[in-house]
Amino acid sequence: MTNTPSSASGPPSGPHRLVGRQGHARWEGNLDTHAFRIGSVPIGSGSPVVIAGPCAVESHEQTLAIAHAVRAAGADLLRGGAFKPRTSPYEFQGLGIEGLEILAAARAETGLPVVTEVLDVRQVDLVARYADCLQIGARSMQNYPLLREAGRSGMPVLLKRHWAATLAEWLCAAEYIAAEGNLDIILCERGIRTFTRGEYGRNTLDVNVVPAAREMSFLPVFVDPSHATGAATMVPWAAEAGCAAGADGLIIEVIADETQVCDTLCDGEQSIRPAALAQIIRRVRPEETRDTSQPGFGLAP
Amino acid sequence: MTNTPSSASGPPSGPHRLVGRQGHARWEGNLDTHAFRIGSVPIGSGSPVVIAGPCAVESHEQTLAIAHAVRAAGADLLRGGAFKPRTSPYEFQGLGIEGLEILAAARAETGLPVVTEVLDVRQVDLVARYADCLQIGARSMQNYPLLREAGRSGMPVLLKRHWAATLAEWLCAAEYIAAEGNLDIILCERGIRTFTRGEYGRNTLDVNVVPAAREMSFLPVFVDPSHATGAATMVPWAAEAGCAAGADGLIIEVIADETQVCDTLCDGEQSIRPAALAQIIRRVRPEETRDTSQPGFGLAP
Amino acid sequence: MTNTPSSASGPPSGPHRLVGRQGHARWEGNLDTHAFRIGSVPIGSGSPVVIAGPCAVESHEQTLAIAHAVRAAGADLLRGGAFKPRTSPYEFQGLGIEGLEILAAARAETGLPVVTEVLDVRQVDLVARYADCLQIGARSMQNYPLLREAGRSGMPVLLKRHWAATLAEWLCAAEYIAAEGNLDIILCERGIRTFTRGEYGRNTLDVNVVPAAREMSFLPVFVDPSHATGAATMVPWAAEAGCAAGADGLIIEVIADETQVCDTLCDGEQSIRPAALAQIIRRVRPEETRDTSQPGFGLAP
Amino acid sequence: MTNTPSSASGPPSGPHRLVGRQGHARWEGNLDTHAFRIGSVPIGSGSPVVIAGPCAVESHEQTLAIAHAVRAAGADLLRGGAFKPRTSPYEFQGLGIEGLEILAAARAETGLPVVTEVLDVRQVDLVARYADCLQIGARSMQNYPLLREAGRSGMPVLLKRHWAATLAEWLCAAEYIAAEGNLDIILCERGIRTFTRGEYGRNTLDVNVVPAAREMSFLPVFVDPSHATGAATMVPWAAEAGCAAGADGLIIEVIADETQVCDTLCDGEQSIRPAALAQIIRRVRPEETRDTSQPGFGLAP
Repeated sequence: MTNTPSSASGPPSGPHRLVGRQGHARWEGNLDTHAFRIGSVPIGSGSPVVIAGPCAVESHEQTLAIAHAVRAAGADLLRGGAFKPRTSPYEFQGLGIEGLEILAAARAETGLPVVTEVLDVRQVDLVARYADCLQIGARSMQNYPLLREAGRSGMPVLLKRHWAATLAEWLCAAEYIAAEGNLDIILCERGIRTFTRGEYGRNTLDVNVVPAAREMSFLPVFVDPSHATGAATMVPWAAEAGCAAGADGLIIEVIADETQVCDTLCDGEQSIRPAALAQIIRRVRPEETRDTSQPGFGLAP
Repeated sequence: MTNTPSSASGPPSGPHRLVGRQGHARWEGNLDTHAFRIGSVPIGSGSPVVIAGPCAVESHEQTLAIAHAVRAAGADLLRGGAFKPRTSPYEFQGLGIEGLEILAAARAETGLPVVTEVLDVRQVDLVARYADCLQIGARSMQNYPLLREAGRSGMPVLLKRHWAATLAEWLCAAEYIAAEGNLDIILCERGIRTFTRGEYGRNTLDVNVVPAAREMSFLPVFVDPSHATGAATMVPWAAEAGCAAGADGLIIEVIADETQVCDTLCDGEQSIRPAALAQIIRRVRPEETRDTSQPGFGLAP
Repeated sequence: MTNTPSSASGPPSGPHRLVGRQGHARWEGNLDTHAFRIGSVPIGSGSPVVIAGPCAVESHEQTLAIAHAVRAAGADLLRGGAFKPRTSPYEFQGLGIEGLEILAAARAETGLPVVTEVLDVRQVDLVARYADCLQIGARSMQNYPLLREAGRSGMPVLLKRHWAATLAEWLCAAEYIAAEGNLDIILCERGIRTFTRGEYGRNTLDVNVVPAAREMSFLPVFVDPSHATGAATMVPWAAEAGCAAGADGLIIEVIADETQVCDTLCDGEQSIRPAALAQIIRRVRPEETRDTSQPGFGLAP
Repeated sequence: MTNTPSSASGPPSGPHRLVGRQGHARWEGNLDTHAFRIGSVPIGSGSPVVIAGPCAVESHEQTLAIAHAVRAAGADLLRGGAFKPRTSPYEFQGLGIEGLEILAAARAETGLPVVTEVLDVRQVDLVARYADCLQIGARSMQNYPLLREAGRSGMPVLLKRHWAATLAEWLCAAEYIAAEGNLDIILCERGIRTFTRGEYGRNTLDVNVVPAAREMSFLPVFVDPSHATGAATMVPWAAEAGCAAGADGLIIEVIADETQVCDTLCDGEQSIRPAALAQIIRRVRPEETRDTSQPGFGLAP
């Protein structure tokens, strides 16, 4: 990597000077992560954080059932889409404000802070009134007006990587948020589009980008094994692989035990059941944590 | 292709039912193109249309000089960015309203209709007051609120393909515009991102998608050889290849003879000089046009 | 491109010093092509050369019928596989020596020189006794022992680019042949594998690589529109696009009029009929040839 | 995945009928792995197996030093190239027979069985006399004569995936070996080529293919984190990610402590030091093994 930080690198510079390690005495020459909170949940503080919930908020009953199930499985935050970016105008576009109300109700019942997507720059204030963390979807990663408004909201932001974005483009997208004075940003890898598309899974989980992003930036890095695979049977493997590659957390789509995949309005085939979620969470939270000061794990000498 | 139109295919259906050929008696079983006008310039009417101009509107003097030069070279419409989507927040973001005023002045002097990008959903009305055709950039191809507002504007829309969009996703993006009652859409291929990135050119011109898109949809298909290569010496070859593949037109970035590449604020290295533009235009407008009813050129039997 | 030749570049150097323009007074600073003959057919001498024939030699009758048809359509050389590299061991592997005998018979009847693939290093001598030009397939592009033996054969070699090879890797493969004293090499682009795989066509024709390869090397560059698309209806568009991008020739798979696609043993769906071939040949051989000393077409100033 | 095995699927069929689970009572409906031995080392028997050693055999002293170091670090087998497939004909091509002799000496001293590459079909017998396992490199994955000879050798074969091969193509390559009566095959993922090439690492480790391959085939699946990243600082993360995704083993390039990266003849920048190897081995061999009969890990219900 050409941007490897060195110990005497001068003041922060370059296109992602606010979110990069280079030139920041606190962050240069180590792999430490910027720590902050979403609600009361600490992010970037060591043990992997798990965000789980339905792909889309489809109803009060569905969302509450899943919220209780993911909490019981050990998840830390609740995800769920009220505004859904859909490839076709004829697909379910989300419940909108009603969906936000349902998420707020789920939070009230379970105590789980809420992560939900905003995709229209005119709705940032609205979504920010309900959410604990704004999600910027992959398709919106280079929607610069939206990034700026998300930055101005003062809310934590989970920034998905576009499926064809370079690491530099992803960090620059974060820089648009940071330039508004907001550094509480999660970088979330959700799979890249490669020639494997359609043969197995929908995308390719780019585990390499996890250590590469952590070396370049102090922002926490999450992995979305649901979109990175597109198939429920592959999600647990991808989830563990993401954490093994150094991810600070996961965001996973979950379907209730009593729901048929074919009855979901969005991405049911990549959603896992609560029992699988529970096993993933047990496995990615080992008692012994990795020591990045050990040989091999860490920065170039 | 699985979506090959047949002569007895029932009513239009599927995720891009308004812009697809399938089920439309006028369009099914032929390769005809929907014809409309941008200003007085006919689009989709046979001979390739050429949109040319600076990457970004940088000044009144620069824009007017290029506008006159591209008109003299034979271009039909003027391009130029007033609002620029830039990877980094520290790059030149365009002159904004001042840039729109300059474009209007260039139109007044040269008579060339203006194509310019809109990237913020809150600025569609503003840009529509100045432009003759709204450009949706590659990064915005799945900005659904923006697509809807562009559709509602009633203006012709040039819709760039994202560098990692499937043909189905691109047509669905057009469908969002069409669903607002607006069919005056140009599909514009501008190169896809592949493993070749950075070795030669910045992207790979996907010439295959030109006949594939024309077979699926009746919308005119343009090619942008500037972004599809990223290098001025490759632009003429890519421009001719695009037209040979069946494109209805080109959009090309031009730099004035008196400007140094290093003095441009945006993408100077992929901009060609007016004399190269003139030669491209002469070569892609042969007197003999292709007859798609001949063997080989056209639909599957 | 970092390797742009300059007028004072010193002696040939780098990993493709024999086949690159750099340092060769005859080739540096121009776009001229090394000219040689396959049988009596001149290669690299201006007007595009067309190699056509069946994907695989399936029988004497089939091959002779196609050979006569492609000659009547205006093709210059005959292609046809006697040894076929097949993804599965259970697919038709070619007729072997019998196939070579049939190709020789077709040459005797039509006068067309024969291009055929060699894929086993132990069979180079055998194939060289029958062929006028050895084809190295995409899968074998980095089979270095095979490249060396092909170089030693003294025969012209058509070197297909692997679907995931960089330009540098392709030129280095040619260098292995050249290092044996053999410069009569055709570089043949046959499509790269991208995320579009399977949606339309099988591969993406990389037209950008044609001017890029011509700028780096003096070897003639051909395009294979059959593999680069995988669909007969797209072949004519891709063939013209390849020539418009500067290709010195084409290699095209043809099926006889009387044969059903489903009756072919190999790649019938991407083979075109003789009448389509005839139209392609008429269109890619315009009376007026391109003048690369004109503005825009040619080298960087 | 369309090829998901079901419990009543009929006799083995399709292009990879010998190495696929489908139709084999022993392998269908589970994720068990075919177990065999390389020398005395069991493969596919549970805990990850680690193959380690230099990229290329450069000298007796260098190879012996690394062999002792990787054994001390806990590696099970020794790797090292005597015949090296190199992009350029001017790069170090390996020591050939002398390299094989050195590997044999290293085995005699350390007891580690030897895995080494064969790339010329005419040298299979030679390499088989020295090696305990034949490696087929990525470039040779579709060198069908070589696959057949490797199958006939009766030796265990480590079959690398080409950087642009589909899963089906990879399994079909294994089928060529299996069709000669040899099922002792390791499938080894070594990174695919994507648009990320050159920004960070050289390739993208495709962790998704590990569970996908294990679901389709009973052959053991290994991961090569050295080539899959191309950078020593990323190797430990990729190694752990590969095992977390279900890999049965790793193959890792190692450089001696006393060697400068710039002094290596091949791929030094992706080679790790013995202490890093030791830490990787400790971390990927946890006492508690994964139970794939648990919810989420395993086959579709």
